[in-house]
Amino acid sequence: MRLRIDLAYDGGPFAGFARQQDQITVQGALEGAWSRLYGTDVPMTCAGRTDRGVHALAQVVHVDLPGDTHVQPETRLRLDALVGDAITIWEVRPVPAEFHARFSATSRAYRYRLVDDPAAVDPIVRHDRWRVNETLDIAAMRAAARALMGEHDFASFCRANGRHTTRRIDVLTVTRVAPGRVDVRFKAPAFCHQQVRAIVGCLVDVGRHRRPACWVGEVLAAQDRAVAARVAPAHGLTLEHVSYGRRWPAAPPRQVRRALQR
Amino acid sequence: MRLRIDLAYDGGPFAGFARQQDQITVQGALEGAWSRLYGTDVPMTCAGRTDRGVHALAQVVHVDLPGDTHVQPETRLRLDALVGDAITIWEVRPVPAEFHARFSATSRAYRYRLVDDPAAVDPIVRHDRWRVNETLDIAAMRAAARALMGEHDFASFCRANGRHTTRRIDVLTVTRVAPGRVDVRFKAPAFCHQQVRAIVGCLVDVGRHRRPACWVGEVLAAQDRAVAARVAPAHGLTLEHVSYGRRWPAAPPRQVRRALQR
Repeated sequence: MRLRIDLAYDGGPFAGFARQQDQITVQGALEGAWSRLYGTDVPMTCAGRTDRGVHALAQVVHVDLPGDTHVQPETRLRLDALVGDAITIWEVRPVPAEFHARFSATSRAYRYRLVDDPAAVDPIVRHDRWRVNETLDIAAMRAAARALMGEHDFASFCRANGRHTTRRIDVLTVTRVAPGRVDVRFKAPAFCHQQVRAIVGCLVDVGRHRRPACWVGEVLAAQDRAVAARVAPAHGLTLEHVSYGRRWPAAPPRQVRRALQR
Repeated sequence: MRLRIDLAYDGGPFAGFARQQDQITVQGALEGAWSRLYGTDVPMTCAGRTDRGVHALAQVVHVDLPGDTHVQPETRLRLDALVGDAITIWEVRPVPAEFHARFSATSRAYRYRLVDDPAAVDPIVRHDRWRVNETLDIAAMRAAARALMGEHDFASFCRANGRHTTRRIDVLTVTRVAPGRVDVRFKAPAFCHQQVRAIVGCLVDVGRHRRPACWVGEVLAAQDRAVAARVAPAHGLTLEHVSYGRRWPAAPPRQVRRALQR
């Protein structure tokens, strides 16, 4: 039997999603909690492996259980209680065996939060946003972002690790959501490793007027990671949605919808 | 020359405000930054010493400098850069020697944030709110709070440490600010040690229907700390305002006003 688990996490305490020897990871915490709950070790597969420090509001995982496992309505609550405060289990539900958390996904959406108030910012809410100390030029960032829309070889923006780096970006918006706050939002069928943070790093250099808007297109054309800016810090980034298209429609839990509005 | 410093901090990384040997504290970070900046050690006096883990949006500190010290306009920025991400310096300005951060203050205002959505909550914003797993009965909490308004001996709600415990509470409100979110707000000329968290602990027990609303008045009357509930966790509490009355009027910086709205 295959189960789908929808979850959120604060990336701060974790060395990323993927299980690692001697490191506290989201997958390790999840699998450990499952093992304590049911006495069996089951490997979990996620929609998108987030890096160390990256948050998720709507990560999706699947897990295969022996056919006779009885999943109770309390499973969500019990798992949620065991995984600790930094992870929230939104839903646990049986899905057909054809559903695959990673390969059935048709798109992923990320948000990168920036704070750009040079007159100083509230330190209590700094855990999910990157503070830059100059006011960002949003118009320049938008102009720069245009060059990245559509399908390209994003080699300049990826830790390729030998894999191909052609991707298609469907949505890339730069919005001043409040005084001193700028959101950069992305939607794509798939991203390569550190692509979002590398793009945000370059857009922020443009927003600070360290580079002209046209420079981002030149970075793209160079297909060389060495020409890009430093990647933006992990803690500004949140995985906000994974879509499974028309075949597996699923409205996000109402708590996710509410959290997306903050 | 006396300076007034307005600041905010995330209480999470600190062992409270007051300087301690071998512990990272807000006062230690502030005085250390000052010492690096000006090469002199100066003791600082604050409006209200917050406990380990308690946040502040609007803490006020004063410091005395040798008469010939030249405070530049960049002092705020330089101090802000040195104190680290968890502290923000809003303002640094000269004040008359009669101004005293603690003794001139006429009232303090605190907010305690509660999250009470049993269907699970966003883990990314958990650093400044206490999650309780039942829906709180706000009407019962309000009825209970009424017994605490005005002047009383709050011995049941204080770590007295031998000091007198009579205080006057001018404002104590319980408000559902959004689905799943409840704020408890306090204003008083002064509070005794852990008074706010002890009161919130008792109000939450009422809100969960573990105790009737009338119980809080009984706790007050008992003047015995052993009869109260456990104090609420520190990380839900934020010092939001210190007022210095008509003699030292000062509007909070606009960033504070903005932060108060989240």
